[in-house]
Order: sequence, then structure tokens, then C-alpha cells
Amino acid sequence: MQIPIGVSNRHIHLTKEDVDKLFGDNYELTSKKELSQPGEFAAEETVTIKTDKSEIQGVRILGPIRPLTQVEISKTDARKLHINPPIRPSGKIDGTPGIKIIGPNGEITIDKGVIIAERHIHMTNADADSFGVKDGQYVSVKTAGERELTFNKVLIRVKDTYALDMHIDTDEANAAGLQTGDTGELIK
Amino acid sequence: MQIPIGVSNRHIHLTKEDVDKLFGDNYELTSKKELSQPGEFAAEETVTIKTDKSEIQGVRILGPIRPLTQVEISKTDARKLHINPPIRPSGKIDGTPGIKIIGPNGEITIDKGVIIAERHIHMTNADADSFGVKDGQYVSVKTAGERELTFNKVLIRVKDTYALDMHIDTDEANAAGLQTGDTGELIK
Repeated sequence: MQIPIGVSNRHIHLTKEDVDKLFGDNYELTSKKELSQPGEFAAEETVTIKTDKSEIQGVRILGPIRPLTQVEISKTDARKLHINPPIRPSGKIDGTPGIKIIGPNGEITIDKGVIIAERHIHMTNADADSFGVKDGQYVSVKTAGERELTFNKVLIRVKDTYALDMHIDTDEANAAGLQTGDTGELIK
Repeated sequence: MQIPIGVSNRHIHLTKEDVDKLFGDNYELTSKKELSQPGEFAAEETVTIKTDKSEIQGVRILGPIRPLTQVEISKTDARKLHINPPIRPSGKIDGTPGIKIIGPNGEITIDKGVIIAERHIHMTNADADSFGVKDGQYVSVKTAGERELTFNKVLIRVKDTYALDMHIDTDEANAAGLQTGDTGELIK
């Protein structure tokens, strides 16, 4: 029941339209590094996210383009920016704060889309069968090391295009003393 | 078995000698706010901590003065500063990194003293008897809320001058969705 753990730093997903506004018409993102989920990549390109009170530069874009622009930050980042985004699964952005996004070719202001990602495990149907869990179920994951802890309320997300990986943010990784490549034990 | 939780932001404890160097001879720290542990206070005064790569301004001094200068930061801070302090209980600073500390009247460079504080619970002997735990023992603490988790390896620290309080850092608080005034359940 060991699950590989991947630590997500703050990042942004963009629509084609928003990439065009930030980087220029028909701009194509460049892959810097492939991610654990097949087809996904960290782009060479970064943007600045900005509120009235503060900003964070160098926010990595994750590709490919998506149907929805979404900014995923940690609670630490949210405090720095003086905003209070909710903990949400990816794509559930109704009622979330907006933010200004600044690229080399222009800037946009989204009226919603900033979330703190709910921790979750990506897996295939075969993985789900083998673990005896279902899409949408919540499980616990016990980690090891000096800052050993058990994460409860970890969302299971099942799709055959996924690769087995638990995603936590940098606050969760730092609190648990974890880095990408560590593993945790799934507990039902 | 409910324990009040206190979130420790990055802070510094200073010797009298180091207060003198940073703020001037026989300078007296000013209390801004009393802390949960009797006699302890957050001072009005702050300093800058600085490495070759980066710095953090506005680091709060906790008073009163102590026999040992010690800087307590989060893993998030450590990454920003490009240093790698160990997780340690307060006072155990052998082999830890040093740092430059800058005050309004001067600066010092300590050759050790930067730690990430090991999470711990302060309590009196009466509390320890009532919970059935001992000084130096490790316990678990289960928290509630959307980011519910169970911290393992939580150090018990017993002294009759303490007040019952579990101390976690900002990474741990953010990862667990906790703030000062929340509570956790002690599990042996």
C-alpha cells in the first residue's frame, strides 16, 4: 500500500486565450521537465501573480493548456499575498478569489481561480481495484521520518490516464519532512 | 485529552550580550505581547537574518533574554535562505548552521543556533500526571478540520513553570489548517 509522493510547488494552469494574452498570439509553451502525470509538463515560462498588497514572481506554468485558468498556491503564499483561497480539488473554482497575472507580453486579471489544492492521490482503475478504493473516496496516508504524521482526508482521483502519485503542497511537504520521491502508506 | 495549539512564527532568542551588540549597551527589550508560557513575551524589536544567498527582515525577538542565542525558522524559511537546519528541540544547537543577525545598532554572526523547532507540548507535572505521560516522551496529536491530520513524534516537555500548549511552526499549522487557539487530541 505504498504510494509515491510528489510535492507541488505553487503553479498556474492557463487557457490558450490567457497564454496568448500573457505571451503573445499563438505562443507555444516550452516543456522544461515532464511531470508524473502522463503528458503534463513544467514549462520554461513563468508569470508574476499580484494582489493589491504583494506579489510572487516566477510562478511556474504547468502545461499543456487547459480549459480553465487556475492558480494553485500554498497557505504560506496566500498569507504573503493577503488572500484567503479555500482548499479545493482541481477545477472547483466557484467562489474562489481572483488575482492579477503578469506575463512578458501583457497582463490579465482573473475574477476567480486561486485555490489551495486539496491533497489527493492520482491512480488508474487497476490501482484503485488493487487498493480497494474508489474515485472520490477519502483515505489516510501515513508517512515516515522525523516529522512522521498521518494525513487524513486524502482524496482519491481515478482515471486510466493517471499515474500513481500523491500530490501535496510545499507546506504539507515541509510539515511532514517529505520530498518528491518519498512514499506514504495508504490507510483506508 | 484536548491540547491547545499555539503557532510559532519564525523568531529569535538572544543573550544579553547579543542584545547589547544589536541594540546598544544595556538595551532592554520591550514587550509587545505576552505569550502562552508564563513570563515569555514577543518583543517590539525585530532583526534581519541574512545568509550569502538571501535574507528575512522583521524576525521577531522573543523575550526575556536567554543563556543561548537561537533562531527558530520554518523549512519554508530555510529554503528561502538556502540553509538546511535540523529539526531540534529548543537548546540543542550543536552542529546547527549559523547565520548573520542584523539589528539597528550592529550585527553579529553566530556560528551555530539556527533550528527548525521540533513540535512539542509544554505542560506542568499535574498535566503530565493527568494525561499519564512523562517529560521526554513522544505522543501523537490528532487535529480536526478540512486538513485533518495526526502529528506523530510530538515531544512532551514538563516543567511546573509551563502552561499547557502544543507548539507547531507555520508550515505545520498551514499543512493542518490550524491557527493559534485551535486544539488537538493527545493520543498515546
